Amino acid sequence: MKRLILIATLTALAIEPLSLYADDGMWTFDNPPRKQWKERYNFEPTDAWLEHLRLASVRLNDGGSGSFVSPDGLMVTNQHVASGQLQKVSTKEKDYTREGFYARTNDEELKCPDLECNVLVSYEDVTARVQSAVKPGASGKEASDQRKAVTAAIEKEAIGKTGLKCEVISLYSGGEYWLYRFKKYTDIRLVFAVEEQIAFFGGDYDNFTYLRYDLDVAFFRAYEDGKPAKTPHFFKWSAAGPADGELVILPGNPGSTARLLTLAQIQYQRDVGNPLQKLVWTSRRDALARYAERGPEQARQAGSAIRSLNNSLKRLVGQQEGLMNPRMMSRKEAEEKALRDAVAQKADVQKAYGDAWAQIDAVYRALPSMAARIAFSNLTPSRLGTIASQIVRYAEEIQKPNDKRYDEFRDSKLESFTFALMSPAPIYPEMEEAVLSAWLEEGLKTLGPNDPFIRAALAGSTPSAAAKQAVSGTNLANVAFRYSLRLGGADAVAKADDPMIVLARRIEPIIRELRVWNELTILNVDASAGEKLAKARFAVYGRNLPPDANFNLRISYGRVLGYEEDTTLVPYKTTFFGLYDRARSFDEKPPYDLPKRYREGKDKVDLATPLNFVYTADTIGGNSGSPVINRNGELIGLNFDSNIQKLPNRYWYVEEAEGGRAVGVHSASIIEAIKKLYGADKLVKEITGQ
Amino acid sequence: MKRLILIATLTALAIEPLSLYADDGMWTFDNPPRKQWKERYNFEPTDAWLEHLRLASVRLNDGGSGSFVSPDGLMVTNQHVASGQLQKVSTKEKDYTREGFYARTNDEELKCPDLECNVLVSYEDVTARVQSAVKPGASGKEASDQRKAVTAAIEKEAIGKTGLKCEVISLYSGGEYWLYRFKKYTDIRLVFAVEEQIAFFGGDYDNFTYLRYDLDVAFFRAYEDGKPAKTPHFFKWSAAGPADGELVILPGNPGSTARLLTLAQIQYQRDVGNPLQKLVWTSRRDALARYAERGPEQARQAGSAIRSLNNSLKRLVGQQEGLMNPRMMSRKEAEEKALRDAVAQKADVQKAYGDAWAQIDAVYRALPSMAARIAFSNLTPSRLGTIASQIVRYAEEIQKPNDKRYDEFRDSKLESFTFALMSPAPIYPEMEEAVLSAWLEEGLKTLGPNDPFIRAALAGSTPSAAAKQAVSGTNLANVAFRYSLRLGGADAVAKADDPMIVLARRIEPIIRELRVWNELTILNVDASAGEKLAKARFAVYGRNLPPDANFNLRISYGRVLGYEEDTTLVPYKTTFFGLYDRARSFDEKPPYDLPKRYREGKDKVDLATPLNFVYTADTIGGNSGSPVINRNGELIGLNFDSNIQKLPNRYWYVEEAEGGRAVGVHSASIIEAIKKLYGADKLVKEITGQ
Repeated sequence: MKRLILIATLTALAIEPLSLYADDGMWTFDNPPRKQWKERYNFEPTDAWLEHLRLASVRLNDGGSGSFVSPDGLMVTNQHVASGQLQKVSTKEKDYTREGFYARTNDEELKCPDLECNVLVSYEDVTARVQSAVKPGASGKEASDQRKAVTAAIEKEAIGKTGLKCEVISLYSGGEYWLYRFKKYTDIRLVFAVEEQIAFFGGDYDNFTYLRYDLDVAFFRAYEDGKPAKTPHFFKWSAAGPADGELVILPGNPGSTARLLTLAQIQYQRDVGNPLQKLVWTSRRDALARYAERGPEQARQAGSAIRSLNNSLKRLVGQQEGLMNPRMMSRKEAEEKALRDAVAQKADVQKAYGDAWAQIDAVYRALPSMAARIAFSNLTPSRLGTIASQIVRYAEEIQKPNDKRYDEFRDSKLESFTFALMSPAPIYPEMEEAVLSAWLEEGLKTLGPNDPFIRAALAGSTPSAAAKQAVSGTNLANVAFRYSLRLGGADAVAKADDPMIVLARRIEPIIRELRVWNELTILNVDASAGEKLAKARFAVYGRNLPPDANFNLRISYGRVLGYEEDTTLVPYKTTFFGLYDRARSFDEKPPYDLPKRYREGKDKVDLATPLNFVYTADTIGGNSGSPVINRNGELIGLNFDSNIQKLPNRYWYVEEAEGGRAVGVHSASIIEAIKKLYGADKLVKEITGQ
Repeated sequence: MKRLILIATLTALAIEPLSLYADDGMWTFDNPPRKQWKERYNFEPTDAWLEHLRLASVRLNDGGSGSFVSPDGLMVTNQHVASGQLQKVSTKEKDYTREGFYARTNDEELKCPDLECNVLVSYEDVTARVQSAVKPGASGKEASDQRKAVTAAIEKEAIGKTGLKCEVISLYSGGEYWLYRFKKYTDIRLVFAVEEQIAFFGGDYDNFTYLRYDLDVAFFRAYEDGKPAKTPHFFKWSAAGPADGELVILPGNPGSTARLLTLAQIQYQRDVGNPLQKLVWTSRRDALARYAERGPEQARQAGSAIRSLNNSLKRLVGQQEGLMNPRMMSRKEAEEKALRDAVAQKADVQKAYGDAWAQIDAVYRALPSMAARIAFSNLTPSRLGTIASQIVRYAEEIQKPNDKRYDEFRDSKLESFTFALMSPAPIYPEMEEAVLSAWLEEGLKTLGPNDPFIRAALAGSTPSAAAKQAVSGTNLANVAFRYSLRLGGADAVAKADDPMIVLARRIEPIIRELRVWNELTILNVDASAGEKLAKARFAVYGRNLPPDANFNLRISYGRVLGYEEDTTLVPYKTTFFGLYDRARSFDEKPPYDLPKRYREGKDKVDLATPLNFVYTADTIGGNSGSPVINRNGELIGLNFDSNIQKLPNRYWYVEEAEGGRAVGVHSASIIEAIKKLYGADKLVKEITGQ
């Protein structure tokens, strides 16, 4: 209600930000919420403070966040962010996911097969250059081509000048463009990880809930030239951790939000996009779960992916519940109405941007009929299928000039692309066959036997036979073979008789056709209408609303704060007492069983040590592993989850009073556990400096 | 839904009970749910097993339940059931509510000023005699008089024969009448009580919630002839306590349910009765809370009453939320429709009883206009005012023959009445004046200055002056004075110039007038139409539905069972670990502070000891202190609360899947605590026999 009142009383063109009175927003570093910090928390950081925050923050390209915590490249993040790499460095004989890991010396650190980490070194506003490159009167397709061209040129120049990884980032659906320059680390080694059972204590049940008792922590180290990287910007570790009510600042890489979408776009997600996404993920999860039932080794192989899909599904269900809630949706409607009314009152703004809503409405009416085809026409669930498609696509794209390629094959991205494609991470053919077969089966069921993708993929065979043939005959698990194919160029790829490549070639025309349709019909309008909406918002609200998140570096903030639920109080923190209570309350039945180290080590730990805590900061998937920083710049916790109340925050900030909270691991619990239960004295010394 | 399907498929006259597939019902001992026990739990107790259960169960007339746990009169109940007596035996110097109490020898046991306990020794169906005493064609008033007369006669005969306390109990709103014979104990002594802060850890916030960590326990001892009573029927204490999923049986005295009311009666409660009750209790609670703010001694004096009112208010709000929930109310509507449809299909049943609903509808339309007058026209919040009104009323009633008196002055009840009236419990004039003044103030606000009660009570004065005058001048705190007045008879009372008696005399005609109106207009119809509805139900469902609860002995049953909430699991039990977690999670801020004994004694306790647990049994206020019994007849816990989901159970049984649960103190936690934290070895020995 507060929001609406604020809007209703506006007269000036640039008005108070909607979010002024809430800990709302995942802000870019070029536009931190200084006003809110000052007014709500009397916090006025210097530019140097913010620069230090940014340079100590790390994006893990597996899909999470982290930060440096020593001058020697030591990074901390969540065990669940590390779990993909833990899976890849584990074997049937040595399962680090289950057992945890600690390298007592640098030599014992385990090299990760395909983890790339990025630090945002600098950024530059290139909005004017990108937007002016689009000629007046250009068609949607022409505008898109012109933007691509200028983007490629800006990136190429920047790489040439700095040698850094450089990317042009679109914010506010094209309302702004920024050149981001990253320092890139690709030699990342595992230093420490807890047992999954304590990182994920309570499993899917407790995921996205609070009270919580998870020690979701892992440490990596960045290397350069075979030596620990020098990282002068790192966070000092706070032994005390957060106090009740304290201001917290979280740098991190929130995955994606959809708050500036129009009602039509959100309704599409509610009615079509999310249900379809649920079908896709459920199908993939179920296929993996069936595979995992074959035995403990299969369960190990599938474990990380199952956990990740379960996590995505539980989050999706929570987001969707928000959209299905009429009270919540009515806020969205009121927000859009307020903006449209404000635009309508300014003749010039209305004339320039007022048609954007109608344009989006029109194209989103076309999307539902194609959405299932787009969702299922790929080999994504299969790692081998993905590799094959990438090689086939690369071979075609690389022949084009830089500015005409698909985005992901622009020069600026090729290094990261190759790093991922050539990953030596193990591939399990039995699992590949199971998931590919199930995927084609689900596609057949959803799209029908006459669908072009299904016909091309199956080529007259059955899903299981097609999967068996492609997986059993392929050599793509061999990294050297991938190299040779990629180096062989379009000819080698076109002639290869590797059956997975053959499958990828058969479906590639269908995928490209759908991509053309999507770009011409949907994405170009998203971009051009999105730019108009952004400009309309700037005209009404100024630049006081942060852009939607897109897995680039942002700052969130808030305060440590419990809440009320079911007529009682939920405290701002939990303790190790609570971990043992929850385990014993379930008689240690899974997922409430404790790792042996914890069961037997109970008396070594000070059970009053805080374990998890909650705060009002605006976070979302991708913020996993974000350091929680106090105003002194010290690390007081590790963000690892949100509670269930907060899940609709993909679409709007869930207010403090609604009980939405982010959940973090308390800095003291990490020290207490790794010292007393793991005997990781060297690690403790490195992060505490003592 | 299951219920409706069951009803819809009926053809026979006596059909399957509605509650067959749920742990539903507070059953009378004459009609235990043997069929459900057998089918759901394969439990077939002998008659002797049930008789033992009954004879070891105790009603505490302060408003709770308890049970014998040794052959020497030792009883266990909740600290919160004992709290009224704890308040009364405490002084400014020695606050047993706050500090707890333990009598190391029998001599140290503290005599309770006015606690009466009853054991249901035997019972007898007197329905035919009572119902046939009502002559055909009798008016409502005549029928009521005839029932009164026969009831008084039955009780008088029974007392004469047995010397026991004998009462005729109405069940099913007059569908059945039973003669209950009680063994009565009035010399009750306090043996042990925990500190309120551990009995009520988490205070009002955690009240009616689960997870829970309350050691809500106290022990009394019944005496006869100055010696510990011989109680051969007592429960053996189980050291192990309940297992997950285990059957539990709870004897106890559930306060009141309203499940067999008609829709019109329930809607009255929702729209008028409950809001009015909330106003009354809130006003009383607020007056006491303001008084408590005057200082620690005032807070001590008001503590027990504030706690009790807060408890009532939180429960009332939960009940009302159930009634306000359209989904829940629609069940009630469907149930009534099913019964009316079934009645309509049987011409004879319809003819005999079918007009009952319309009769009730008609009179409940008259009640709202009088409800506030009835609620406020009394001196109930003031103990002195209550005593005065009782003396004035007694003087008038006792002149009438036994069968013409108000129910509460029948010969069968006079002993208990006198015991309560002559209680030597301390009275605090400052508090009396504060609550009486606030009560008259609220009455004035609600009823207006021209209301007959208000005019009589104030007699031209203000609420505060009237209260001050009555309290400061009265001698009723003196028990001997009460005796002399009562013995002096009507004359002495009529002439007394004690100002509280004068006040009571002034208002008595108003109260009597309202009582007449209520009896003639409402209660007589409730009784006659209620009898019809009961007979209609018997005709349709047989005697398979238990009667509404009325603070007489019942058996509930269910199983120990956790539940799902907010996407995660709630375990069937908690442990001492959790107590310390919750305390530390709030940094021990009240109401999450621990008694010193617990804070300092943490290392003495095995923290894995179970503390509280939940089960599906059908309970309500009055079941506080009920022993939780396993199929071996052992005490495995003490019932002390319900969770928030269960609160609407005044109106219907909250199903297992809805998460409604009763909450108990685990038998092991009591032994662990009283042994290791209180050093109460003698007590441990008495209850464990070791």
